[in-house]
Amino acid sequence: MDQNQLKQQAAEAAVKFIEDGMVIGLGTGSTVFYLVDALGRRVRDEHLQITGVATSSRTAKQASALGIKMIDLNDAPELDLTIDGADEVDRNFQGIKGGGAAHLLEKIVALNSKRNIWIVDASKLVAHLGAFPLPLEVIPFGVEHLYQRLAARDLKPKFRLDESGQRLLTHNKNYVIDLQLQQIDDPHALADWLDHQTGIVEHGLFLDLVNQVVVGREDGVEILDAGRD
Amino acid sequence: MDQNQLKQQAAEAAVKFIEDGMVIGLGTGSTVFYLVDALGRRVRDEHLQITGVATSSRTAKQASALGIKMIDLNDAPELDLTIDGADEVDRNFQGIKGGGAAHLLEKIVALNSKRNIWIVDASKLVAHLGAFPLPLEVIPFGVEHLYQRLAARDLKPKFRLDESGQRLLTHNKNYVIDLQLQQIDDPHALADWLDHQTGIVEHGLFLDLVNQVVVGREDGVEILDAGRD
Repeated sequence: MDQNQLKQQAAEAAVKFIEDGMVIGLGTGSTVFYLVDALGRRVRDEHLQITGVATSSRTAKQASALGIKMIDLNDAPELDLTIDGADEVDRNFQGIKGGGAAHLLEKIVALNSKRNIWIVDASKLVAHLGAFPLPLEVIPFGVEHLYQRLAARDLKPKFRLDESGQRLLTHNKNYVIDLQLQQIDDPHALADWLDHQTGIVEHGLFLDLVNQVVVGREDGVEILDAGRD
Repeated sequence: MDQNQLKQQAAEAAVKFIEDGMVIGLGTGSTVFYLVDALGRRVRDEHLQITGVATSSRTAKQASALGIKMIDLNDAPELDLTIDGADEVDRNFQGIKGGGAAHLLEKIVALNSKRNIWIVDASKLVAHLGAFPLPLEVIPFGVEHLYQRLAARDLKPKFRLDESGQRLLTHNKNYVIDLQLQQIDDPHALADWLDHQTGIVEHGLFLDLVNQVVVGREDGVEILDAGRD
């Protein structure tokens, strides 16, 4: 199976966690596309009443078209469940997100959810985080100085560019700097340091957050429980 | 003397810290207006070469018109000195800024300066921070949930409104929430907690940062040294 088939298989398994009447957070990216598609079929076939909150207009549009009532996070109660992809998940169920440059909104949705599920293909499971570059959403004002500070700390910063070679702009009109760390020895210590830096709006470390990880493998879907209530 | 005269007097004293050839950070607000005015006179009379970085277009425009070469922070080296106002300064030289909703940009400039001077009238000197509401610049997405979290922690949040009664938008198109705390017992502990909250771009606590405070008093100008190198 190719990676897309693995993602689709995992998405089909993850959609079973959704129950009638739930308010659901929906992330961004290719895996979530398959999830929303599968959820749309359940909504149609089982006449489910599902309310959704999205972190991108693309997901919102797809879900609306499939009969899922989409609302703004500000109009929602605490979400019952958020399902999203992840770029890396380590053995302690810590993750990196932000490959799609939406980790700020994704983290806000995740933190306002009772439970979080990530859908990944098996290639996303790693022993240590960091081979996937860690995304930072950063304020453009004075960003050259922030960049130098990151470089001086050997955090290997690199501005993310868009298709036309310009610095990519996020939904909130900020830049993305990717830290090409290769291996993050202490995710909590790094997150703590990054949290304190003025000009970094949010980093892509999602720590102590996910409850279950649904993994698409060649030999079927595996559901890993993080042991968090 | 009224408050404006005290500010003007303090600004006249602060401008003497500026030396020929310096790259200067210029903050926002009424006190900085007097400072830039005084600096413009020095530039004219003493033929100083001064380069400035501003945190607002208003200050940039005023300074440019007075012969100060204004550049973007991203094009500047580390600043020699930043001079700005402050909304409160306590006995330990910790401060609150953000009454003008520009504390994000002001903090970025301050942190990229070798030295920082604040100009205040004597009414800004307090025993404990907190009578002045502590400003937070916050991401609009999901902000109602953040507001509830702040309220649940008894941090007394209140959205700042503009003149037409709508939520005020900052330069970066975020909202401002003011925490009406009355007294902040441990500014470092509060700053640390706020730094870790997703959705708060920056808070208005400026800790361990200012080097000198220039105070306009009825009986003259006093220069307080924070004892920081």
